[in-house]
Amino acid sequence: MQQVVHDPDHMRALVHEARAAGQRVGFVPTMGALHAGHASLVARASRECDVVVVSIFVNPTQFGPQEDFTRYPRTLAADTALLAAHGVRWIYAPEASSVYPPGDATRIVVGGPAVRFEGEQRPGHFDGVATVVCKLFLAVPADVAYFGAKDWQQSLVVKRMVRDLGLPIGIVVCPTMREPDGLAMSSRNAYLSVADRPRAVALSESLHRAAELWSAGADTATIERTMRETLSSHGVVIDYAALADPESLDPLPKNATRAIALVAGRLGSTRLIDNMELPTRGSPERGAET
Amino acid sequence: MQQVVHDPDHMRALVHEARAAGQRVGFVPTMGALHAGHASLVARASRECDVVVVSIFVNPTQFGPQEDFTRYPRTLAADTALLAAHGVRWIYAPEASSVYPPGDATRIVVGGPAVRFEGEQRPGHFDGVATVVCKLFLAVPADVAYFGAKDWQQSLVVKRMVRDLGLPIGIVVCPTMREPDGLAMSSRNAYLSVADRPRAVALSESLHRAAELWSAGADTATIERTMRETLSSHGVVIDYAALADPESLDPLPKNATRAIALVAGRLGSTRLIDNMELPTRGSPERGAET
Repeated sequence: MQQVVHDPDHMRALVHEARAAGQRVGFVPTMGALHAGHASLVARASRECDVVVVSIFVNPTQFGPQEDFTRYPRTLAADTALLAAHGVRWIYAPEASSVYPPGDATRIVVGGPAVRFEGEQRPGHFDGVATVVCKLFLAVPADVAYFGAKDWQQSLVVKRMVRDLGLPIGIVVCPTMREPDGLAMSSRNAYLSVADRPRAVALSESLHRAAELWSAGADTATIERTMRETLSSHGVVIDYAALADPESLDPLPKNATRAIALVAGRLGSTRLIDNMELPTRGSPERGAET
Repeated sequence: MQQVVHDPDHMRALVHEARAAGQRVGFVPTMGALHAGHASLVARASRECDVVVVSIFVNPTQFGPQEDFTRYPRTLAADTALLAAHGVRWIYAPEASSVYPPGDATRIVVGGPAVRFEGEQRPGHFDGVATVVCKLFLAVPADVAYFGAKDWQQSLVVKRMVRDLGLPIGIVVCPTMREPDGLAMSSRNAYLSVADRPRAVALSESLHRAAELWSAGADTATIERTMRETLSSHGVVIDYAALADPESLDPLPKNATRAIALVAGRLGSTRLIDNMELPTRGSPERGAET
């Protein structure tokens, strides 16, 4: 039933054929090392679509020269088994040379929501993300693609690119999946030492503290200070801990009613990120994640 | 018969429908102000395809701040008549706000063949070209698109982008059309004063001199000096006059067998460019344009 496809032209033809036959095609782009977060995207795609394509490609251009490209976990056998269990029809696993042909000289550069946070911490990261996602969308011209809210800024960058270029694909952003102690699921959690693993709860804890203070009417500076204190108290070396507009990621204006809290930091050599949309202020209802 | 389409989603649906019905769709992207050069592209597309789409969009992002965007000729009524006479089915004429939505923050940046010549003379020009051509190809997902050799470097940039991103469209580059005296047809020729018009022959003349010297075995420095002398003698203010590799546009290695000659310069406030592929050295056959 399940088929691994390497060639982009073959992949595109299969998707076109399925859509021409009236099937709705869902696409989940991944770098492999699949966990329950990915599984939730695949499950959502399976519910909403007739056919699901999952790509597995560890994209070199979104890693900085000092980053973890070479040691990024590669677990293809386990990934394939997980996807088979979820009824995924096609795994798109292109060769690096077909994604980046010799003499490759083209990059997609997104400004706006890509500029702050990860954009500052990881120069070129979102150029690599936007470029590979565009190429994947051209090879897998699905009806809709699924991304995780864990990489909130990435989802904003992808949505902006899709809108700006007019790529004919819908984008669905799915809730972050968490370990029982609150740690957001990530392929990079596997890097954490036994000693650091319990400290990693600091990220989600700082976000919950932010949500409480936000709902209680605290100001941005107070909330951000508390987030930093929570992270530091667990030994996290902070890259950023901030509130921002959830769509533009611009700094919050005074009297903002909507906000997202974003954190990034390091435990040993492991870099972790997390975020949480905060409940609309003054609203009687709270968001799903608070 | 002929239909002007403004909406990208509508345009895409029409092209998909035609292709699903087994028709081969050809696409000629233009900025309007159509002349016999454009007509030759349309004629070629009509011979090779069942349906032809021509876009007319004066793309602001490929003009520099000091360039001629506002005065660029706009001749929609004449353009429409010309395209009707050529049996063009669809004219795609998007609004600027649908090509560049508010908050637009995405650019496609090509290196390689985009770096020298026009890339140096017009910073950002090819980012604007690559970005708009990608958007046009997504709105008009034709089988094949036609470009003029007059903008040789542009055609290389487009081909590189298409290959690098994996855009599923073929690119055909058609010979430059010329006035009886040799001047390459261009919408910008309309800017030339009566006094400057005869001087504009200098560009094609310099290219013919280059071809003669190249065939006679002259070295690059001699050929480039002669090109500059020819241009200067007619009063052209030179931007560049050079030989390069016809695919990469890199400087020619010693003993190169293939070359292109490229010139750019100004007469008054009118900037003109031209180029010519030189006959393969040592080959008994000459290229079509020499």
